[in-house]
Amino acid sequence: MDVDKQPLRIGLIGFGCVGQGFYDIIQQQPELGLAVTRIAVKSPSKPRTLPAERFSFHADELLDDPALDLLIEVIDDPAEAFRLVSAALRQGRRVVTANKAMLARHLPELVQLQAEFGGTLLYEAAVCGSIPIIRTLDGYFSHEPLHAVSGIFNGSSNYVLTRMTEEGSDYGPALAEAQAKGFAETDPSLDMGAFDPRSKAVILAAHAYGVFLNPDEVLNLGIEGIGAVDIAHAAVQGRKVKVVAGLYRLANGRVTALVTPQFVGPESPLYAVEQEFNGVVIEAKYADTQFLRGRGAGGHPTGSAVLADVLAIQRGFRYGYAKQAAAPEAQLTADLEVDAYVRHADAGVLREALTWLELPAKALQTDAHGAFATGPVAVQQLWAWRKELRTAGIFVARVGEVRPVAVLAPGVTKAAVLA
Amino acid sequence: MDVDKQPLRIGLIGFGCVGQGFYDIIQQQPELGLAVTRIAVKSPSKPRTLPAERFSFHADELLDDPALDLLIEVIDDPAEAFRLVSAALRQGRRVVTANKAMLARHLPELVQLQAEFGGTLLYEAAVCGSIPIIRTLDGYFSHEPLHAVSGIFNGSSNYVLTRMTEEGSDYGPALAEAQAKGFAETDPSLDMGAFDPRSKAVILAAHAYGVFLNPDEVLNLGIEGIGAVDIAHAAVQGRKVKVVAGLYRLANGRVTALVTPQFVGPESPLYAVEQEFNGVVIEAKYADTQFLRGRGAGGHPTGSAVLADVLAIQRGFRYGYAKQAAAPEAQLTADLEVDAYVRHADAGVLREALTWLELPAKALQTDAHGAFATGPVAVQQLWAWRKELRTAGIFVARVGEVRPVAVLAPGVTKAAVLA
Repeated sequence: MDVDKQPLRIGLIGFGCVGQGFYDIIQQQPELGLAVTRIAVKSPSKPRTLPAERFSFHADELLDDPALDLLIEVIDDPAEAFRLVSAALRQGRRVVTANKAMLARHLPELVQLQAEFGGTLLYEAAVCGSIPIIRTLDGYFSHEPLHAVSGIFNGSSNYVLTRMTEEGSDYGPALAEAQAKGFAETDPSLDMGAFDPRSKAVILAAHAYGVFLNPDEVLNLGIEGIGAVDIAHAAVQGRKVKVVAGLYRLANGRVTALVTPQFVGPESPLYAVEQEFNGVVIEAKYADTQFLRGRGAGGHPTGSAVLADVLAIQRGFRYGYAKQAAAPEAQLTADLEVDAYVRHADAGVLREALTWLELPAKALQTDAHGAFATGPVAVQQLWAWRKELRTAGIFVARVGEVRPVAVLAPGVTKAAVLA
Repeated sequence: MDVDKQPLRIGLIGFGCVGQGFYDIIQQQPELGLAVTRIAVKSPSKPRTLPAERFSFHADELLDDPALDLLIEVIDDPAEAFRLVSAALRQGRRVVTANKAMLARHLPELVQLQAEFGGTLLYEAAVCGSIPIIRTLDGYFSHEPLHAVSGIFNGSSNYVLTRMTEEGSDYGPALAEAQAKGFAETDPSLDMGAFDPRSKAVILAAHAYGVFLNPDEVLNLGIEGIGAVDIAHAAVQGRKVKVVAGLYRLANGRVTALVTPQFVGPESPLYAVEQEFNGVVIEAKYADTQFLRGRGAGGHPTGSAVLADVLAIQRGFRYGYAKQAAAPEAQLTADLEVDAYVRHADAGVLREALTWLELPAKALQTDAHGAFATGPVAVQQLWAWRKELRTAGIFVARVGEVRPVAVLAPGVTKAAVLA
């Protein structure tokens, strides 16, 4: 390194997959002039690839160290991550994070803290790992009206679905394989329950539409209830089951968000996004349809995204959130309808699900692969019964676009309209 | 518009497909605060969508107008475009261009002029239309080592190839259809001869590797000699013919560039890039493989890319050319080899092509679709005979990766090695 040039002194909070990946990359590129001068981790006893004296066990020591030019937060715990990142921004610091759950929950405050104290927060690694989707939406598409931004944002569940599709296997063995290969966590509920891609959709909404959503108000349905039979039902139609996280501009000008399994045909670029890969489709008014695909996880791909943020901060880059000034209203569950596929192996449970979702008995069908139901379902009903659907292991997938529905006149029931 | 806020005054040079597309878009978005205050065109007699008094017929009047905050150059003529853009940069102006042929030929001077006079030049629309490939390579991947950047950069020839593949039609009818639909120029040689994608590859080399190539030294082979039989030969192998423009980091650390037809299998994302769409694959050391697909042409998609540049210039964005400081050497044609497919309908012509390319007689094959030859060919031979191959209408495609070859010991001939 040039002796005249001071390296950028980085404080790294967290040394798991992403932290270690980032550390590896910059060790291999000394010409970048970046130095990880302090690393904070939680557990003093965990075996690590660096000598113990390299670590601090109190992240607050890094916050208190004025010699650090930039902080990177890559820990698991969203509450602790928010405490650290918000404290750093209150000091006007430059911060990079990859914590999507934390961001989805606190983005408005974090944007506010940057405005108030002059710090900068970048988080490209939080959504779709190595794919530069946030800066593409925030910068390149800053003023482009977007019809939709949708994609496969969770590599773990996509890996499980790909294995089930390729091998005809059931959910349990496919999940076990994903866990054995390190593509799924020991507690898979955030990934398989579609909580993780929901966080990512909420983050993208801020950049694609200038809309700050509360993740708790966005419907997410997972794949815990999926079986080989559902893959087979999709295949009969020439489609695959994918967990699609989507932001959609509705015909009424509002924006909705939905994260659910979906039957996806080969006309969609998402059909070909397999294994642990991620993909995003941007449907733009003028630029037309764009598609990006890349690795959504892994130490090096995600570490590379963190590095890109560090270098961008050095160049003075910050997100513009340009669409915030004229953001559309959100319409998350009310007065929306989607064509759904609903299945459970137990006929009694399936019939009960039909009553929850206000589907008529004629929605029930049986084919060589077994019984299921299809029909238009109010997103409100899916929302109202989401916990019961999950607990009962009922598999629900979208088979068409989400759309606003006309509000029924007083006294007119949906059953009467459908009859 | 806010009366307190001065709009950005734009001088638009050229009002063809791209210029009109850009103009349309900003007319529909008055909230952007952009005003095209002057438009220069060449021909006073051509019918236009705006009244005649809106136009100047001398682009130099815009150069001489200090009231213009930014110039957009979207004319066809590369020499005139260079004259205007370089003059504007000498005034330290902010300029957006979409002229790939001009950029490919003059990029080093244009970078130098920006450094010397403090102006800014952006040109996202010059490569792959609406796909933000330049800023992704320049910014996001500014320090990521890249193994390869390759793609389909010409929508016209890709449209022709798609029609031939879908309909089993021959080159002539498919080209006529493309011309009738406005996807190919009346003089198709720049597109079909792969000169246009060569310009784009040269531009990307500056951002992906920091290497400034002379387009005249990059091998480009087109599809003018293609026939239905070539599509059929690729299909026998489960592959499609695509014109692939590629930048490749060689095993020896150097960078090469090659723009030729290629047999592409379904393992490549380019296989699914059809019609007039463009696609780019980035093979990165840490971020792994990324793929971007979108519209490569058209008034609105390309106009949207021009608008993105205008807004980026307003935010103070400029290209960093970060890799220029430690750019690898280029190795364009010498000591490189590629597995090639060679065909001509006339057996005598085909045999002559084999002697040009130093392929042995045993490289000749015949199947149900007719005669062709395959074998390893020195890129140097393709380069040396490129004009003869084009004139004779011989179709040549890559069927494998380009690779450096060991230089033969003095006195050892390739024929002796192959024998």
